[in-house]
Amino acid sequence: MAQNDAGPRPARLGLCAACHGEAGMGQAAGAPNLAGQREDYLRLALREYRDGRRAIPLMRAAIGPISEAELDQLAHWYSQQTPATAKDKP
Amino acid sequence: MAQNDAGPRPARLGLCAACHGEAGMGQAAGAPNLAGQREDYLRLALREYRDGRRAIPLMRAAIGPISEAELDQLAHWYSQQTPATAKDKP
Repeated sequence: MAQNDAGPRPARLGLCAACHGEAGMGQAAGAPNLAGQREDYLRLALREYRDGRRAIPLMRAAIGPISEAELDQLAHWYSQQTPATAKDKP
Repeated sequence: MAQNDAGPRPARLGLCAACHGEAGMGQAAGAPNLAGQREDYLRLALREYRDGRRAIPLMRAAIGPISEAELDQLAHWYSQQTPATAKDKP
């Protein structure tokens, strides 16, 4: 489990980790890597999924019950993860 | 200028680099890092922008004239870039 400047493991991480991995490496074609992504971009994208401006029902459903503070915590967590490079990838 | 398994610098890179950087590190809040992103995800996202399933007019305009082969070349280029980690970032 990744542990760095990301702070405590977010309580809701499991919702994201199924597709994006706990350390932010996408597990499938439709699930992008989030590790080391821009925190401001992640916060923006999460809200666009939640508000439907990004029409991805799965993301909207997953985010639905999550509070603003939790969204920011998840964005921070993933922005602080170290992306695996092409060489590290399985 | 990044040079690794990415192959030759794509001719259209300039269109992307303005916001995403040549090496795939986003230059602004709305422009995500692309470095080291999943190649299959990038190919998918580029087509969703082109077809309007992702309603981002700027991306649709930028991609408009780009051929399938060039889209794949850009996706490959960025997927092979090494993401700067939090420590490397300016």
